[in-house]
Amino acid sequence: MEIQKPYLLFLGDAHDPLAAKVALGIKQWHPEYCAGQFRMKDCAADCGLTDMDIIQAKEAGVKTLVIGVANRGGVISEKWIDILKQALEAGMDLAAGLHNKLNDIAELKTLADTLGRKLFDVRFPTQSFPVANGLKRSGKRVLPVGTDCSCGKMYTSLAIEKEMLARGIKADFRATGQTGILISGSGVSVDAVVADFISGAVEVLTPENDADHWDIIEGQGSLFHPSFAGVTIGLIHGAQADALVLCHEPTRTHMRGLPTYPVPDLQTCMDTNLAMARLTNPDVRFVAISVNTSQLTEGEATEYLAGIEAQFGLPAVDPFREGVGRIVDQLEKI
Amino acid sequence: MEIQKPYLLFLGDAHDPLAAKVALGIKQWHPEYCAGQFRMKDCAADCGLTDMDIIQAKEAGVKTLVIGVANRGGVISEKWIDILKQALEAGMDLAAGLHNKLNDIAELKTLADTLGRKLFDVRFPTQSFPVANGLKRSGKRVLPVGTDCSCGKMYTSLAIEKEMLARGIKADFRATGQTGILISGSGVSVDAVVADFISGAVEVLTPENDADHWDIIEGQGSLFHPSFAGVTIGLIHGAQADALVLCHEPTRTHMRGLPTYPVPDLQTCMDTNLAMARLTNPDVRFVAISVNTSQLTEGEATEYLAGIEAQFGLPAVDPFREGVGRIVDQLEKI
Repeated sequence: MEIQKPYLLFLGDAHDPLAAKVALGIKQWHPEYCAGQFRMKDCAADCGLTDMDIIQAKEAGVKTLVIGVANRGGVISEKWIDILKQALEAGMDLAAGLHNKLNDIAELKTLADTLGRKLFDVRFPTQSFPVANGLKRSGKRVLPVGTDCSCGKMYTSLAIEKEMLARGIKADFRATGQTGILISGSGVSVDAVVADFISGAVEVLTPENDADHWDIIEGQGSLFHPSFAGVTIGLIHGAQADALVLCHEPTRTHMRGLPTYPVPDLQTCMDTNLAMARLTNPDVRFVAISVNTSQLTEGEATEYLAGIEAQFGLPAVDPFREGVGRIVDQLEKI
Repeated sequence: MEIQKPYLLFLGDAHDPLAAKVALGIKQWHPEYCAGQFRMKDCAADCGLTDMDIIQAKEAGVKTLVIGVANRGGVISEKWIDILKQALEAGMDLAAGLHNKLNDIAELKTLADTLGRKLFDVRFPTQSFPVANGLKRSGKRVLPVGTDCSCGKMYTSLAIEKEMLARGIKADFRATGQTGILISGSGVSVDAVVADFISGAVEVLTPENDADHWDIIEGQGSLFHPSFAGVTIGLIHGAQADALVLCHEPTRTHMRGLPTYPVPDLQTCMDTNLAMARLTNPDVRFVAISVNTSQLTEGEATEYLAGIEAQFGLPAVDPFREGVGRIVDQLEKI
């Protein structure tokens, strides 16, 4: 799916700033995609963009209204429907990544079909994928893998893309989850693909490319997360990564959502991911460790990063505190 | 899904005996489920059951017509539709495991809805599954894992169930693919589950049970098959297996369908599967090696099995040639 830009970011009736984190992510990584924001009365979030109503957005050339907010249930709210219909009538497509589908709301679906507008439910792939063929593809690929879910893989990927583009390196972030898809405007939500086609979907998402082109593939889950490891291994096999980046959140006491499962140690995690990744690319290597140190003081973070950098002989960075320049330095050597 | 018995095995217009291999499997493992067979003119297959038309099958108390044949395209053939409609009208449900769905054929769907009959498309799960929780469940579980796809995992599982039941051990074969589901009458086609829910589906399929009860879970794919490893690891994590059986076909020169991918050596395959399986059951162990020696002479098979038995210190058996008594002996020690 390829979502047309520019966007109007819909913040709705966000009950707090965090509820609009998808919109904030889009604004952070691609401000050039964003013509403005739409806030309903009592909206508690703000992306710092020009406030627009639908008419103003149409005049500004907006192509897609992106729902960048989640209400408490994570579904499309009935209160939003009138505004979404106005956007369709003004010529815009709609995009959302919530638990229910725009396409399942009859009045939106009917109106969109009548007007020839598109409804993007980015959490739900609409494409059919082939079974993976495992054949070597040209171009280079880097994949972040994690000790756990939600420990910085998307952030790391987006930061690498930005740094590579700034250096003039040919690079594409390849989104594999709904937030990444809305941020970048395309991708496949691989955790929603049928099990037989996970690695096949990743092969399609990161096709053959120029020999000096990098795909930065958004990682998902963890081989050590018993709920989601199937998604992770499919990503690893389909990616045929040349380089892996280990992502970690050092204060987490157990795997996300599973209090009885400890977070693996970094060495075990790296060994296991390498063993799996070598199946489809025997030359794969770890190039860096990316740590989310947001729960540490600056002093603690510096000490922690220095410790693991010495232990593993790889750059260890917090991409938020210091950027990913040292990761890209490593990738440029490949 | 729970398919009602007894069955009428539909062999259709099978162009050769192998085309009816699903029906042959049902007859082999559960002759007591089979009231008879239906063969169209020119059918080249025979399960050795009483030939029946729909009226005779109804009189024999048949509850479900099972499509036990695949035509060249692997889809439900138009030539079969009139007979399938007769079966619905005679009060039978229909079950199939082909690439297209009974439920997508309008005249069958409409007739079944009108008559209150069920259409089982066993390749396509209809149930929703939770995300796996990884919590320890009571009861014992054994899972066959393979060096490759299609190397004897289902056969080994069914043979273990049969041997356990013959010994008076509480045991259930848990089908994870369409043929296994049709053979046993229930199960989940895990390769068709959405990626996020693979291990969750396996947790549901093999629920808590008596402490001395065995679930024999049908294995799928291989950790070393880059197309399907996501399914395999989800099965491994969801199974929380106490025991693994390594399945192998010793004459295969490459992974099924992928000429550039070699078959892993047995030690590597066992080490990798154990490492993955320990995540959800630290006490998991290999208890045996099950080898499909159908491509070897009896002398070669005996020599091969003796060799790996000595190498790994585990019983190595061909379940077709000698049964799985020695595997069950090992399981009885757990």
